[in-house]
Amino acid sequence: MADDAEHRGDSIRGEGSGRDTDKESVIYTKLKDGSCKLYELEKELRPLDAIRVRRGYIEQETGTTLENLGIFSIDIERVVKRNCENMIGIVQVPVGVAGPLIVAGEYAQGSYYLPLATTEGALVASVNRGCSAITQAGGAQARILHDGMTRAPVFAADSIVHAKMVADWVADHREDLRAAAESTTSHGKMTDVVTYIAGTSVFVRIEFDTKDAMGMNMVTIASANVAEIIAQATGARLIALSGNMCTDKKPAAINGIMGRGRSVVAGIALSHDSISQIFKTDAKSMFEVNYRKNLIGSARAGSMGFNAHAANIVAAMFIACGQDAAHAIDGSTCITTVDLTDAGAYVSVTLPSLPVGTVGGGTGLETQQECLRILGVAGGGDPPGTNARKLAEIIGAGVLAGELSLLGALAAQHLARAHKQLGRG
Amino acid sequence: MADDAEHRGDSIRGEGSGRDTDKESVIYTKLKDGSCKLYELEKELRPLDAIRVRRGYIEQETGTTLENLGIFSIDIERVVKRNCENMIGIVQVPVGVAGPLIVAGEYAQGSYYLPLATTEGALVASVNRGCSAITQAGGAQARILHDGMTRAPVFAADSIVHAKMVADWVADHREDLRAAAESTTSHGKMTDVVTYIAGTSVFVRIEFDTKDAMGMNMVTIASANVAEIIAQATGARLIALSGNMCTDKKPAAINGIMGRGRSVVAGIALSHDSISQIFKTDAKSMFEVNYRKNLIGSARAGSMGFNAHAANIVAAMFIACGQDAAHAIDGSTCITTVDLTDAGAYVSVTLPSLPVGTVGGGTGLETQQECLRILGVAGGGDPPGTNARKLAEIIGAGVLAGELSLLGALAAQHLARAHKQLGRG
Amino acid sequence: MADDAEHRGDSIRGEGSGRDTDKESVIYTKLKDGSCKLYELEKELRPLDAIRVRRGYIEQETGTTLENLGIFSIDIERVVKRNCENMIGIVQVPVGVAGPLIVAGEYAQGSYYLPLATTEGALVASVNRGCSAITQAGGAQARILHDGMTRAPVFAADSIVHAKMVADWVADHREDLRAAAESTTSHGKMTDVVTYIAGTSVFVRIEFDTKDAMGMNMVTIASANVAEIIAQATGARLIALSGNMCTDKKPAAINGIMGRGRSVVAGIALSHDSISQIFKTDAKSMFEVNYRKNLIGSARAGSMGFNAHAANIVAAMFIACGQDAAHAIDGSTCITTVDLTDAGAYVSVTLPSLPVGTVGGGTGLETQQECLRILGVAGGGDPPGTNARKLAEIIGAGVLAGELSLLGALAAQHLARAHKQLGRG
Amino acid sequence: MADDAEHRGDSIRGEGSGRDTDKESVIYTKLKDGSCKLYELEKELRPLDAIRVRRGYIEQETGTTLENLGIFSIDIERVVKRNCENMIGIVQVPVGVAGPLIVAGEYAQGSYYLPLATTEGALVASVNRGCSAITQAGGAQARILHDGMTRAPVFAADSIVHAKMVADWVADHREDLRAAAESTTSHGKMTDVVTYIAGTSVFVRIEFDTKDAMGMNMVTIASANVAEIIAQATGARLIALSGNMCTDKKPAAINGIMGRGRSVVAGIALSHDSISQIFKTDAKSMFEVNYRKNLIGSARAGSMGFNAHAANIVAAMFIACGQDAAHAIDGSTCITTVDLTDAGAYVSVTLPSLPVGTVGGGTGLETQQECLRILGVAGGGDPPGTNARKLAEIIGAGVLAGELSLLGALAAQHLARAHKQLGRG
Repeated sequence: MADDAEHRGDSIRGEGSGRDTDKESVIYTKLKDGSCKLYELEKELRPLDAIRVRRGYIEQETGTTLENLGIFSIDIERVVKRNCENMIGIVQVPVGVAGPLIVAGEYAQGSYYLPLATTEGALVASVNRGCSAITQAGGAQARILHDGMTRAPVFAADSIVHAKMVADWVADHREDLRAAAESTTSHGKMTDVVTYIAGTSVFVRIEFDTKDAMGMNMVTIASANVAEIIAQATGARLIALSGNMCTDKKPAAINGIMGRGRSVVAGIALSHDSISQIFKTDAKSMFEVNYRKNLIGSARAGSMGFNAHAANIVAAMFIACGQDAAHAIDGSTCITTVDLTDAGAYVSVTLPSLPVGTVGGGTGLETQQECLRILGVAGGGDPPGTNARKLAEIIGAGVLAGELSLLGALAAQHLARAHKQLGRG
Repeated sequence: MADDAEHRGDSIRGEGSGRDTDKESVIYTKLKDGSCKLYELEKELRPLDAIRVRRGYIEQETGTTLENLGIFSIDIERVVKRNCENMIGIVQVPVGVAGPLIVAGEYAQGSYYLPLATTEGALVASVNRGCSAITQAGGAQARILHDGMTRAPVFAADSIVHAKMVADWVADHREDLRAAAESTTSHGKMTDVVTYIAGTSVFVRIEFDTKDAMGMNMVTIASANVAEIIAQATGARLIALSGNMCTDKKPAAINGIMGRGRSVVAGIALSHDSISQIFKTDAKSMFEVNYRKNLIGSARAGSMGFNAHAANIVAAMFIACGQDAAHAIDGSTCITTVDLTDAGAYVSVTLPSLPVGTVGGGTGLETQQECLRILGVAGGGDPPGTNARKLAEIIGAGVLAGELSLLGALAAQHLARAHKQLGRG
Repeated sequence: MADDAEHRGDSIRGEGSGRDTDKESVIYTKLKDGSCKLYELEKELRPLDAIRVRRGYIEQETGTTLENLGIFSIDIERVVKRNCENMIGIVQVPVGVAGPLIVAGEYAQGSYYLPLATTEGALVASVNRGCSAITQAGGAQARILHDGMTRAPVFAADSIVHAKMVADWVADHREDLRAAAESTTSHGKMTDVVTYIAGTSVFVRIEFDTKDAMGMNMVTIASANVAEIIAQATGARLIALSGNMCTDKKPAAINGIMGRGRSVVAGIALSHDSISQIFKTDAKSMFEVNYRKNLIGSARAGSMGFNAHAANIVAAMFIACGQDAAHAIDGSTCITTVDLTDAGAYVSVTLPSLPVGTVGGGTGLETQQECLRILGVAGGGDPPGTNARKLAEIIGAGVLAGELSLLGALAAQHLARAHKQLGRG
Repeated sequence: MADDAEHRGDSIRGEGSGRDTDKESVIYTKLKDGSCKLYELEKELRPLDAIRVRRGYIEQETGTTLENLGIFSIDIERVVKRNCENMIGIVQVPVGVAGPLIVAGEYAQGSYYLPLATTEGALVASVNRGCSAITQAGGAQARILHDGMTRAPVFAADSIVHAKMVADWVADHREDLRAAAESTTSHGKMTDVVTYIAGTSVFVRIEFDTKDAMGMNMVTIASANVAEIIAQATGARLIALSGNMCTDKKPAAINGIMGRGRSVVAGIALSHDSISQIFKTDAKSMFEVNYRKNLIGSARAGSMGFNAHAANIVAAMFIACGQDAAHAIDGSTCITTVDLTDAGAYVSVTLPSLPVGTVGGGTGLETQQECLRILGVAGGGDPPGTNARKLAEIIGAGVLAGELSLLGALAAQHLARAHKQLGRG
């Protein structure tokens, strides 16, 4: 393909043929003189052409050659409508697999290969090593602790007395609000509504069971309805549909404590033998790395994350599986523990807030969908919600693999140094 | 291409031709019986073949067809060595552009198109709107406040007295440690070393000017050298090269306060007119959204991020530009402010910790490199460091565009509702 | 009294007369040779004598003269049993009053003088000024948002699967646990029980309506009962009756979000005129101080407190009123807001977690009781709980006075400087 | 004394004799009609009389009898000028002693009795038990890690470019600022100045070695001078002398990371025997309580304090020793660790921020001064600063005693239950 000059920068699907070069040169002129905006190209051209023309324009404007960005196979009609505006092409993010990883969850039960999209060398190898350890030890336990996507509109009250009235009104009208919320969706169920006050600001945190969707859009639409009713009934001014007590894409204690998305925990009991054979270290060293690094180090740093590199696994699986990449933040608040036991060690990860879905968002793109299929979770589950929960359990187990591997590696170095020092002593 | 059955699932570069099907079927058998591991394929086969065979194996094991994952144009020889192990292909992440965005930084000076890799519909459009506003208003100011990548090994001391001795020893041997650190790199300069104690745990936070590299590897290698010396001289046991006071890929106050990577701030003065014309709202409404949502809401939620959706822009630009996607976490701790002024409003974003580089990591992949080229920051800068700083300033300005756009949209809705309510009154 | 040598160091109540000096000199010898411990004196002597002898012993051991510590009027029999072991006397903490302060709460309705025990000059004067402003403006609004004292035992489970089972068991047996909890108290009511998991650690946060008691003891005793049942039924090991998710005497997001003790909010609308007359500043300056200091400054510092000096008022009122002084920490997490309004400014304080009581603890000491009486809240309320809530509302209003005063003073300085600068310009 | 009706409610010093009853009744009338303010009484009357009249007025206004508040022996002339305005008397806070406690610090070396002012039963007994354990085990190690009181004025810049200029100007003029700062004090030395930017807000954190003073006033006065110079030179508007990045009386990561006041660490090695004998438990149980409660529980709660009840000891010693009670907050951020060792356990406490002084504030009150004398730290040290540091080390050791005792008690219960369960098995 690289030697096929005519197709350079084009979709390999080839639907771009039959282009109207005259029309395009007119558009170039319009782009130059500002009478056509870059984002308006789809109005004039078929999507593939619009992307090509836009990319060509950027090439000219920036004096670059963008030959690889234009190579893709995904269904562009769909993408430009749902996933990305002003498109000029795609980036290729390498996908490696780690596994097989045995997971013994409530939803994920079996052996899985984890697709990890990353450009950071050693990550896949590291997770893979963790998967081996887990699988050799019989598999990772995994459980969903809580499930609910949230949105928290913020209102302005006139006074703290008014604010309290708003909170009381919400508490007294839960069922009305639930009806209003659920009228906007055929899938979701409102599971909770909690009100928080800070002076004259009133935050109404609405929680939804969004089934197999990650559900931010669903809960936002429902919240809009609910918020309108509250504003009407109480006279409080609706300031913003999201008042940051949701909390979306910011590390926040409220998500850690109340949960957001799927709250998942995974764990594994490792014998002394397996720690010694797989990780070339011992339980005590592995414990000490976790204790001084993940617990004391994080405490001293004022960190909200008590783990080694959970976000790496979450980000790589999120990108591979078409999840919202900015949600990898939630993975970073994982708590990793290593308990010493008579038999060896019990290692766990707790992810209080993992917003995942198997329908909607980026899950429909062909490559991302293929990654979901590798895990057997593409599309809606039966019953609804089971695919998303299964995905969450698998990611939890994957994070466990990543943590185990890095802790093991650090502990092995630590042990090696200790032996060396003793040898010198 | 899609109609070319033979090439299905192959690199479009086509170097995969001439495959040895007999050898491959032997390998399949070995993979099945476990005598060859999935990650060992590159020992037996050329990279493109290894990837294809591995993907084929995963297809069989999982009963899936992975036709799109195998379509790519990036130079696989390089990728399998540096960026991704156990590779089965790539995911295609759509890239849209926002801009032109005028940036008036110290390093970035001019007009830029921001490449954003995302599958979340509306994001590019939103940032694009913010770019228009900024550009119309004359451009975003941007400054680098601090620059230093960190690594903090953790040591175990025997007692708090020993711990204090270690800290004192480090303070007394800064120059020796600097020499040891810098001996491991031809680029980096050690800029600081600070010691923190928590009981018997001693954390030595080493800071480097890593020039155009994001620099985690550089500083880790240097820290290993430094840590070895400290352990030898003080008798403290080195527990882990990273003791979480670095802090990497976890939200942490220490990064907010001391900075990590590039600390960047961006801002813009908007006139009443431009707020009214572009955002269909007024300064006061925009202020109020930021005040109740980003400041009070985040405070009430126990959040470390005081912004609307900074992580969205950081994640999208990081994926497009070959940065470490898990570092988008750092973007999420942004503080966004809207100050009311006589003329209108001054809006700013402060990103205390943005680990970016223009060399190394994923920056060498063809599609990612093209995105960096769009910004004029591919490869090392002249003088060294200027490209990475330029990238940081542009991302800062991009985050400003994203914040402006979302705050503006929320404020416009708010204003619309207010008018409607008044109309009804 | 100072001239009455014989009584130096004695209770002014004078019950110490008739001391048996022979017996005491024997005891001195025993204390010296260690055959009697300092804390055993009450076994041998009447309380007043024990205190005097103990103080005398400390004087000898440390070569000091402790003439003022021994002067007190409180009923020592009661104190040595309930409030303080190994007593040597008392410290005198000066009490000033601020007020009158008009409070328009649900429980506190009227005009109050606030007793403040402090040694920090200017504090009472500052709060007093705030009280004047509030009273002049018609009084502080105050509301209780939530009321519940908590205790969270921590259990160790064998695995995350076991942990989840424990959580499920608790959810399924709320009513049994409630009965067990309430069987330990004639006053308290269990209002909630929530379970949190971190790996194999299970935290069961039990919440009580403790009426007029601060209630830590009540909820601890009830939790012991509940915890025993959970351990028996689930096989989880009870590790500690308090697992720090309570959270007691540590700043914690969970208290901010879920509330602990009494959650109280207070606020006041100030006109432009009153801001100008009382504070010699304007609404905008007051707003800007709060905005840059209490909101942005605290955010940037990684602080959990978004206020100026709320803890000062809480600590001073807590010491005066016999509250647990270490609970002043909870006051420090206050969020203070200044909203600009057409009429001037609306200022508020939100204290999510204020553990107060009017019975038990230090509330029975004569001086502390007198302070409670000044507020009309000594002893149990009618109906039960109303006195404690009244106290919480008054403290909330007092914090508002303190915040107003300091913000006003800072704003006045700011305005003065601004005028000066303009004058020079 | 109690039977001496005439002196009821008076200072036991008796200087209140010779009162002018006519004058006082005139004043009562004036107070009633508002022509004299409560806080103006000291202008008309001698302090003792003013206090009595004010108390009498409060008695009338509130319908209470305040007979104990008026009993005190402290030198009121001094107190009304320096420590408390609008005084009506004092509260008596019981003081118990814990000890002897052997401390092996750099400044505190020897055996100490800790004065603890508290109304919370069991606290002194608990700390006393910890002191026994420590003393039996040879004494607590203690070290000062950092020493510096801070104040951080906040400035408003016009733009982020201006903000950066201010920061650069400060960095370039450190020596000028130091001279200006130190010109305001004969004792203090400026040890650091660091600038933080959040948008247009610039925070200049000035750090002082305040010798034996807690030093808030000293550094505030010095900061005022510094701030004025910065404002003049840079054109930035000084908004508030304290911009909350100090951070005073709010829990804040910046204090944990950078230190504020005295940063102190204390620790002790306990043998298996001593754990068994003194605490009736074993090292492993004590470790597990700390691990699940203080580390994992606090992490899960979003807490800034990783300890059991450090604030209790800090508050009680602060009140006894005339420290600012609201500063007990800083004690609450303590990190407590229990390391398992071959010999038993090493237990430590790390208090990053302990603002203490032995001169100024409440240290001059007679009873508080006596408590300081018990510790041998009343007044200025020789050389200056050594008394305050000694006090900090002793408090650190006291916190260690308190933590040890509570952890030991919890662990003993845990072990007892474990044995019971086994017995039943």
